[in-house]
Amino acid sequence: MTVSIFCGHPDLENSSSHQFLRAACPEEIKFIPVPTNYNDEFIQESQETLLESERIYLQFPLYWYQAPGHMVQWLQDLLSDDFLDQNGKHLVGKSLGLIVTVGSPLSYYQAGGKNNVSLSTLFSPYQTLCQTLKWEFLPAFILSQYHYLSEADRAQKYVAVQYYLLNPKRGSFSQRSRWLIEHLSKRQEDFSPGLRGQVDLLVDAWEGRLDELDMLEVELPKTTRH
Amino acid sequence: MTVSIFCGHPDLENSSSHQFLRAACPEEIKFIPVPTNYNDEFIQESQETLLESERIYLQFPLYWYQAPGHMVQWLQDLLSDDFLDQNGKHLVGKSLGLIVTVGSPLSYYQAGGKNNVSLSTLFSPYQTLCQTLKWEFLPAFILSQYHYLSEADRAQKYVAVQYYLLNPKRGSFSQRSRWLIEHLSKRQEDFSPGLRGQVDLLVDAWEGRLDELDMLEVELPKTTRH
Repeated sequence: MTVSIFCGHPDLENSSSHQFLRAACPEEIKFIPVPTNYNDEFIQESQETLLESERIYLQFPLYWYQAPGHMVQWLQDLLSDDFLDQNGKHLVGKSLGLIVTVGSPLSYYQAGGKNNVSLSTLFSPYQTLCQTLKWEFLPAFILSQYHYLSEADRAQKYVAVQYYLLNPKRGSFSQRSRWLIEHLSKRQEDFSPGLRGQVDLLVDAWEGRLDELDMLEVELPKTTRH
Repeated sequence: MTVSIFCGHPDLENSSSHQFLRAACPEEIKFIPVPTNYNDEFIQESQETLLESERIYLQFPLYWYQAPGHMVQWLQDLLSDDFLDQNGKHLVGKSLGLIVTVGSPLSYYQAGGKNNVSLSTLFSPYQTLCQTLKWEFLPAFILSQYHYLSEADRAQKYVAVQYYLLNPKRGSFSQRSRWLIEHLSKRQEDFSPGLRGQVDLLVDAWEGRLDELDMLEVELPKTTRH
C-alpha cells in the first residue's frame, strides 16, 4: 500500500516537533514537505503522488485553529476543478489522516475546556472534504506540547506515530502488541549485543502472554448493548 | 463606530457575487480586498485598520469548506505574536462576523444533509479565535447560490446584507422595520419622482402599522420557559 505524508510546517527545518515526526516516518512512507513558495510543478507532482497513494496524511501545526495558510492554499490548488474532472473516479476510496501538533494541552480542546471546542470540530472541513471525495477520514494523530515531553514520553510517541502511520485504526490490545513484537524483532540489529538479549527475553515473555490473552478474550462476556 | 470588511476572494473583479456584496457595502464601512500577493506593508495597514475598527467582517467564498488559503495566511500574518504582544490589550472587545458565499444550497449544510455538517461547525476556528481574543463572534451572513437568485431575491439580499453590516444582531420585527423605514426615507432622492410618491405612501402606511404592532407586542403573552 502506498502511503504519503504532506507536511505543511512553514519552517520545517527549525521545528523540533516536526523533525521528530519526520524522523519517525517509516522508510516505506513518502514524506513530502510542502514549501511556502511552491510552484505549478510542485502541484502537478503532488497530484501524481495523490493519485498513486492509497492513504494520505496531512501533517501541520495548528495556527489559530487552522492549518497554515499556505497548506490550505496548496490543498485548494491540489484539488482543482480540472484535476477532479479528469481524475475524480481514480480518487474514490482513498483515506486521509491528520497529524497535528498543538502548543497547548489537549484538555483545552473540549466543550468546557479553555478553547471550548474539540479538535474533531475544528477538523470538520477535512472530514467534510473526505465525505465529498468519498475518502475515509481517519482518526487524527495529535502531538501536543512536544517541548514539555520527557524522553520516555517522546519515545512512546515515536512508536505511537509509527504504529499510527502503518495501522491508522487502533486495533485491539493483542493486535497492537503483535505489531510491536514484530517491529522489535525486525529491528534487532539496531540494538547493542547486550540489549539484544534483553529485548529477546521481553519479546519471548510477551508472546507467551499474548496467547493467554487471546484465550482470555474468547472467554470474556460480550455485550451488544451500547 | 468604525467597521471594516476584509474580502478574501482571490479574483474579486470577476466574481459577480462578491461584486454584488461590495456594491451593497454602505459608504461608512471600509471595504478592503486582501490581494493574493499582499506584502508586509499590507499586513501593517491591515493591523492599523484592525486596531481602529470596532467591528470586523471577513468576506470570502468557501473553498473545500474553508476560507481561501491566502486569506487564512493573511489572518495568521495579521495576528502575529509581535502584533498581539504589543497590542493585545487594545484588541479586546471587538466583534467579528463572516460574510460567506457558498455554491450549494444551504440545506446541504446540516446534520443529515449532503455535507452532513453545519456552517457553524465549519466556522468553529473563527468562533474559537474570537473566544481567545475576547472578541464577540457574530452570526454569519451567508449568500448561497447567488447565480440562481431571481432579481427580487437579489434585491432582498441587497437590503439584508446592508442591514446585517449596520445591525449585526437581527433585532425584533419592529426594530428591523424602523431601520428600513429610516433607510428608505434617507434615500428618497435615489428614486424617480413617480416612485418617490409611492415610497412615501408605503412608509406612511408602514409607520402607522408599526405603532399598532408595538401595542400588540406589549399585550402578547410572554413565556420565560425554554
